[in-house]
Amino acid sequence: MKRLILASASPRRAQLLRQIGQPFEIVKSDYPEPPLSDEKMVEAIALAKARSVQKRYPGDLILGADTIVVRGTKILGKPRSEAEAAAMLQSLSGQSHRVLTSIALLQGNRSLTAKEETRVWMRSFTGTEIHAYIATGEPLDKAGSYGIQGQGAVFVERIEGCYFNVVGLPLARLALMFCELGWPLWHKGGD
Amino acid sequence: MKRLILASASPRRAQLLRQIGQPFEIVKSDYPEPPLSDEKMVEAIALAKARSVQKRYPGDLILGADTIVVRGTKILGKPRSEAEAAAMLQSLSGQSHRVLTSIALLQGNRSLTAKEETRVWMRSFTGTEIHAYIATGEPLDKAGSYGIQGQGAVFVERIEGCYFNVVGLPLARLALMFCELGWPLWHKGGD
Repeated sequence: MKRLILASASPRRAQLLRQIGQPFEIVKSDYPEPPLSDEKMVEAIALAKARSVQKRYPGDLILGADTIVVRGTKILGKPRSEAEAAAMLQSLSGQSHRVLTSIALLQGNRSLTAKEETRVWMRSFTGTEIHAYIATGEPLDKAGSYGIQGQGAVFVERIEGCYFNVVGLPLARLALMFCELGWPLWHKGGD
Repeated sequence: MKRLILASASPRRAQLLRQIGQPFEIVKSDYPEPPLSDEKMVEAIALAKARSVQKRYPGDLILGADTIVVRGTKILGKPRSEAEAAAMLQSLSGQSHRVLTSIALLQGNRSLTAKEETRVWMRSFTGTEIHAYIATGEPLDKAGSYGIQGQGAVFVERIEGCYFNVVGLPLARLALMFCELGWPLWHKGGD
């Protein structure tokens, strides 16, 4: 019996798969993620993560993903310090930015990849708010220094595109890819 | 010490307040909600819910809210049967619709109200998918017969506007209203 394997250590991606009732297992990819300098690389990285896990589990369905935050042409990774988080948040205040997630789904010698983009508009916020937000600890392990699914939600005025793509997996797109591979989307007992 | 009181029995609204770290208590409004025939009423209903709770807790900050789903000019309420849920979902397939949430925030003799609209695009889906979704039990207590924060996510291709407005509270807008009333947005120990 084939399993769905999520090739990602992100607790947010695991939560999204649980949300749509998919049974799965997590196997962290050992792909050494390079610092990203070109947004075109996001698709290759999702694929590489999935491939590295497929080597160990060739009979299963493997899902790899990569998410980046882009402000103008600048890719915003995870902040390395509170000062860097504050600078990133300052640059997002009152502006729009893009969130790109790429996913790769591998089954034997079949591979599907997709890239989805969502535009995010943040309201203007003050330095005081930025420091209060950083004090919650939430920004420090997040690309772009915010979590839309956490307290960072209070900054996000509107989006255009898939919300779940911003969290880490474009769910409607993923559902279509499951269908294309004949993988069951609906299971009994999902939560 | 004033408390924030959520005048709504919706577990999804309570979850959104927890997401942004707001301490609060729930007091269900005893306002007898009329069947909604005019989308202009959504603001009045949010206000009436909050007022009915304010009578009992005049010293606290009261939050009322109401959410409706509108397809064309037709308001989609909670389905009264599986057949009605199937018909509603069929009417949403491959189309866009609007979700309107109105919120009212009352503090003594001050009252703030706001209405936020989000447009939601669903992919096309089959009758088989509709029946599989209804079998999960999720559609039956939801306006419009779907939950974007649940398995219904797999139908939602894109949105324009505030995502949390679709779930039940426009969080960025609510944050600004808290600020306007001098209510602290950031608390220690939020989750």
